[in-house]
Amino acid sequence: MTETVSTQIQLVRRPQGWPVHEDFRTEKVDLGELAPGQVRVANAFLSVDPYMRSRMNDAKSYIPPFALGETMTGGAVGRVVESAAEGLPAGTVVLHQYGWRDLVQEDAAGFTAVPEIPGVPLSLHLGILGMTGMTGYVGLTAIAGMKPGDTVFVSGAAGAVGTAAGQIAKLLGAGRVIGSAGSPEKVRLLTEKYGYDAAFNYKDAPVREQLKAFAPDGVDVFFDNVGGDHLEAALDVMNRDGRIAVCGAISLYNSTEKTPGPDNLAKIIQQSLTIKGFTLGGYLHLREEFGARMTEWFGQGKIAYDETIVDGVEKSVDAFLDMMRGKNTGKMVVRV
Amino acid sequence: MTETVSTQIQLVRRPQGWPVHEDFRTEKVDLGELAPGQVRVANAFLSVDPYMRSRMNDAKSYIPPFALGETMTGGAVGRVVESAAEGLPAGTVVLHQYGWRDLVQEDAAGFTAVPEIPGVPLSLHLGILGMTGMTGYVGLTAIAGMKPGDTVFVSGAAGAVGTAAGQIAKLLGAGRVIGSAGSPEKVRLLTEKYGYDAAFNYKDAPVREQLKAFAPDGVDVFFDNVGGDHLEAALDVMNRDGRIAVCGAISLYNSTEKTPGPDNLAKIIQQSLTIKGFTLGGYLHLREEFGARMTEWFGQGKIAYDETIVDGVEKSVDAFLDMMRGKNTGKMVVRV
Repeated sequence: MTETVSTQIQLVRRPQGWPVHEDFRTEKVDLGELAPGQVRVANAFLSVDPYMRSRMNDAKSYIPPFALGETMTGGAVGRVVESAAEGLPAGTVVLHQYGWRDLVQEDAAGFTAVPEIPGVPLSLHLGILGMTGMTGYVGLTAIAGMKPGDTVFVSGAAGAVGTAAGQIAKLLGAGRVIGSAGSPEKVRLLTEKYGYDAAFNYKDAPVREQLKAFAPDGVDVFFDNVGGDHLEAALDVMNRDGRIAVCGAISLYNSTEKTPGPDNLAKIIQQSLTIKGFTLGGYLHLREEFGARMTEWFGQGKIAYDETIVDGVEKSVDAFLDMMRGKNTGKMVVRV
Repeated sequence: MTETVSTQIQLVRRPQGWPVHEDFRTEKVDLGELAPGQVRVANAFLSVDPYMRSRMNDAKSYIPPFALGETMTGGAVGRVVESAAEGLPAGTVVLHQYGWRDLVQEDAAGFTAVPEIPGVPLSLHLGILGMTGMTGYVGLTAIAGMKPGDTVFVSGAAGAVGTAAGQIAKLLGAGRVIGSAGSPEKVRLLTEKYGYDAAFNYKDAPVREQLKAFAPDGVDVFFDNVGGDHLEAALDVMNRDGRIAVCGAISLYNSTEKTPGPDNLAKIIQQSLTIKGFTLGGYLHLREEFGARMTEWFGQGKIAYDETIVDGVEKSVDAFLDMMRGKNTGKMVVRV
């Protein structure tokens, strides 16, 4: 029998503002023998994502909050090491949502086999080839109805979703793609590696001023990962019938005080804007469409990506916090 | 020849905050003889509407600002008194956008003939049978995609658009329709005359508290005429995939300071909400559909309406200000 002791990160207290290590604990759990129909999976990579911060709160949301005293769930990719289920033999690469643990043992129904592509790291199934890339694709297409020639602004553009969104926008024919990020290095990456036509450092000057200068003809589609001052700045310059896909509001996630919204919401009427919040859950029917297009682009070498890799399941909390603070470029993953 | 001197209200200064009489002047203009193709129309009723406040500012919007030194334009209904145009003989009832004047003389192309319905006052073409009623219809259908069974909240529900929207929501099969208004009399009218299932006075207690109590199962569609605290309260209680049709933001129109937006915009993501601003201009193709349904409902006696009528074209500014302050119930019109 293979190893059965699983190291797991559990949430034990709901964070106030920024999460701290004391909000979590590391547990070792002996999984015992496989029951019929179960598989045991050794995780290769775990995903840490901004949406997880919302789930740490005990608030009504699109998915229930993380349970206290239980292991943090989330996207992960690994390999079946022992199987008592037909269809998922040992060696199969699988995606799942069992999250922050090195070893997971559950019914086979909780895992999805993914093809192993030679030369492509498994971690990409958590990033550009997986939910992260699909979030960019869905936000631009199904949510914002991006049309060729549109000017697109992406906030938090150097993050995992942002780097995907910018490239996909260009591949879908956007006229001009503008991104914001939080350091000169990231700003440079956006234009040099990710095909952004222009990018700025939101710490250099008020977003309102910078965006106005970078989008002299206005913005048709705003893909928002940040909220706050970025949303306010975008509302100022949105063109008539503009569309805002609200993917994230990282500026608000760790705020303990109520943060007032933009002072220019009247633009919603004046410019007939549509603001639409989304999470991927409602758009899983587009998985095949996304997969087909992304595979084609990826195969043609048209997709760039970065990963920030942190080693060790016990470093999951650090990886999550670094990602929330913007220390990553591209997708942040934990290598088990 | 009939009377040719037209009394007109002109905008001479851009208001700061609440408009004052000094921002306008009353001019008498001799229209002279009809040119070929022109008609002269004696207005019966003029419309005063919230959107006009935005147009008094010199700001980018969906329609250009009112020109200084020129006569206020806007919806009006009248009768042709002299005609030099084929197709619009004297006696024809016409709708037009030439606004705040008793007599107007322009090319026939600027006027639309409307059928005279026995027993139906001409003013209704400016209200429930016209743009006002259509705004309610379009907001609920094309913008918010209201479905039978939906819980609908209408802010500023005793206004012209609000009284239309509430009734139309019920006729389209809404499960529960809740309205807010600014006086006990208006609140009573909403439930007793306009078919609202529940209504509250927003001056009685914070909207956030009241709406939560009146919508224990949440809100699916919010038809917003007010913005500000009403939008914030609605965001708190919107159900998943809820839709907000932003028709007006009367709370902001006369504000000279920047007003911060709602502190709970994260709900847009958490509940996958869609917020869509609109003006009727983009939906004129629905005029026939609206006309057919409204005529049917009206003929069946299913449509209630109120009008607040102010007499005299020179009282147009007073009528406009009273409407902005909520002194009207239902549609506010000026009788010439």
